[in-house]
Amino acid sequence: MAVRVLIKHGGMPNETNTPSAQKSSVTVLGLGAMGQALAGAFLAAGHPTTVWNRSAGKGEELVARGATRAASAAEAVRASDLVVVCVVDYDASGVILEPLAADLAGRTLVNLTSDTPERAREAAAWAAKEGIAYLDGAVMVPTTVVGTPDALLFHSGPRDAYDRHEEALKALGGHTTYVGEDHGLAALYDLSLLDYFWTSMSGLVHAFALAAADGVPAAAVAPYLKANAGLVQSFVDQTAGEIDAGRYPGEQGNLAMEVAGIDHIVHASEHRGLDTSVLRAARAVARRGVALGHGGDSWTSTVEAVRKP
Amino acid sequence: MAVRVLIKHGGMPNETNTPSAQKSSVTVLGLGAMGQALAGAFLAAGHPTTVWNRSAGKGEELVARGATRAASAAEAVRASDLVVVCVVDYDASGVILEPLAADLAGRTLVNLTSDTPERAREAAAWAAKEGIAYLDGAVMVPTTVVGTPDALLFHSGPRDAYDRHEEALKALGGHTTYVGEDHGLAALYDLSLLDYFWTSMSGLVHAFALAAADGVPAAAVAPYLKANAGLVQSFVDQTAGEIDAGRYPGEQGNLAMEVAGIDHIVHASEHRGLDTSVLRAARAVARRGVALGHGGDSWTSTVEAVRKP
Ligand SMILES: NC(=O)c1ccc[n+]([C@@H]2O[C@H](COP(=O)([O-])OP(=O)(O)OC[C@H]3O[C@@H](n4cnc5c(N)ncnc54)[C@H](OP(=O)(O)O)[C@@H]3O)[C@@H](O)[C@H]2O)c1
Ligand SMILES: NC(=O)c1ccc[n+]([C@@H]2O[C@H](COP(=O)([O-])OP(=O)(O)OC[C@H]3O[C@@H](n4cnc5c(N)ncnc54)[C@H](OP(=O)(O)O)[C@@H]3O)[C@@H](O)[C@H]2O)c1
Repeated sequence: MAVRVLIKHGGMPNETNTPSAQKSSVTVLGLGAMGQALAGAFLAAGHPTTVWNRSAGKGEELVARGATRAASAAEAVRASDLVVVCVVDYDASGVILEPLAADLAGRTLVNLTSDTPERAREAAAWAAKEGIAYLDGAVMVPTTVVGTPDALLFHSGPRDAYDRHEEALKALGGHTTYVGEDHGLAALYDLSLLDYFWTSMSGLVHAFALAAADGVPAAAVAPYLKANAGLVQSFVDQTAGEIDAGRYPGEQGNLAMEVAGIDHIVHASEHRGLDTSVLRAARAVARRGVALGHGGDSWTSTVEAVRKP
Repeated sequence: MAVRVLIKHGGMPNETNTPSAQKSSVTVLGLGAMGQALAGAFLAAGHPTTVWNRSAGKGEELVARGATRAASAAEAVRASDLVVVCVVDYDASGVILEPLAADLAGRTLVNLTSDTPERAREAAAWAAKEGIAYLDGAVMVPTTVVGTPDALLFHSGPRDAYDRHEEALKALGGHTTYVGEDHGLAALYDLSLLDYFWTSMSGLVHAFALAAADGVPAAAVAPYLKANAGLVQSFVDQTAGEIDAGRYPGEQGNLAMEVAGIDHIVHASEHRGLDTSVLRAARAVARRGVALGHGGDSWTSTVEAVRKP
């Protein structure tokens, strides 16, 4: 099937790198840190890879490894049925892609630039108008992990476009995943994960700051914080179940008690001259949860307050 | 050695439960959910256990299992060299303990009520004045985990008092831990862990709310959020190392880029009518980090902004 794709769309194996003739050709637009990692992963998997970047001087190493540098973005697009773009944001990808509509028509475009679901849906509407098969994606790992079995990437958009290129896209990571037809979903999954991640990392840094304020080295609390991160992990499924059911039983701990616990953290942090804005915001949400009648429910019931800002 | 303690202080094994004569007697003041769990763990480990609660009607099951119910708090204190108190807060423990000063003198008092390091240090000053060996502690697990190998409890105060009663205190959990002479430390470790925990749980609930806003069930993102929690866990030691060194190298990701990522989460959340107060607070701290010159440093550098509210 990969051969059929190759023949059908005229992708040519790169002679110097002698990639297997079964591998489809791919084009990567944008050679920032992530674009280079993506192109490198395609090359490593034996895909004839054409690259292009706005400014010169990027991707020398890729060319040395066998990538073809296109003289223009249009030439790069015409080299492959599968075109991947990864630049700083959707304003930048828009600037690159709009003049290429005619060249992209009939091909598959995968935008791995990070942004919001709204931007992804706008781009999808544009692509549909131009007759471009469009997938939106999100790279969930640092550049160094791209192309390894651990790398997680989300894709959303038409299932048939994903299926047609899944084999090539799998070169980008062992956890290359399709999450649905709605083009906004990859970005939504991305933002949901980052939402948890950065809030959690805020708490981690604050926890260390609190300990350090009384002379306790971060290394002394670190083992307990690791155990605590494991505890949060162990609560994920239960929290998910409560959210999906819209029921938040409070037998194991209730919001009213938990708000009192957060009070102690706020007081102790203030006493030490530390910022308490994140904690206060979390407490205000929880207090609104109590005011909404969830004082006897679990922490998960704060979702009702999150939904009523 | 436990026998010596028992004989020296006149603790008497409970006849009906025939606990081993080697086990020291203990007293538990306060039979709320946690007080009952603590007394139950002492009983299970064979310690003659005397219990007392302000209101009648609590702890019937403990008495059925062999605990002795004291007629008054003073009588309860006089039954053991080791007196554990666990009530709702330090106002409540103060109300109970102050009239008992003379009875407590010469004994060891362990306060497992949760509060701030400041309250623990005040209580320690009072205990020192009254000639009471005082340890402050924090129970880090739910009642159901108390007494099991998984249970974590912190203790701080005079090392000799802890060593004298370590064997009995180990009945409360496999991870019964001494964290230092400063009486505030157990509460400080407690609050540091809870700081991380509740901030992280806020992020978890918000992440699910964001996904659900576009019709994605929590169960669909849960596997990725679990992986993400593991990722946070894997960053704990590195973050700790950076905090202790006061250096925040930004090769793997820098604050300026991360702030832009948080912008996307804020926009997408607002667009869905969700509360963004926690995210905005976290972003404001990160932006202050950038303003302090840490735009090219790692996320850990936000600690400098946490320290300059
Ligand atoms: N780096 C990571 O670890 C990582 C991880 C996950 C996701 N991501 C996402 O991947 C995307 C790319 O990140 P990166 O790390 O590769 O960024 P980067 O190293 O800063 O590269 C930015 C790229 O965008 C191009 N660009 C910027 N403005 C442009 C414009 N107006 N027209 C054309 N090209 C423009 C740049 O071209 P010039 O060279 O001509 O400036 C360059 O190729 C971002 O959305 C990022 O959030 C990155
Ligand atoms: N439950 C948990 O899972 C858990 C986990 C970790 C830490 N903790 C901590 O353990 C402590 C106790 O929690 P809990 O769950 O046992 O609470 P609880 O079930 O609400 O029990 C509260 C206890 O405090 C007593 N009390 C309240 N005000 C009093 C006063 N003015 N004078 C005398 N006694 C008074 C109550 O006595 P009456 O029966 O007479 O009202 C009762 O014994 C708290 O600091 C809590 O943060 C609890």
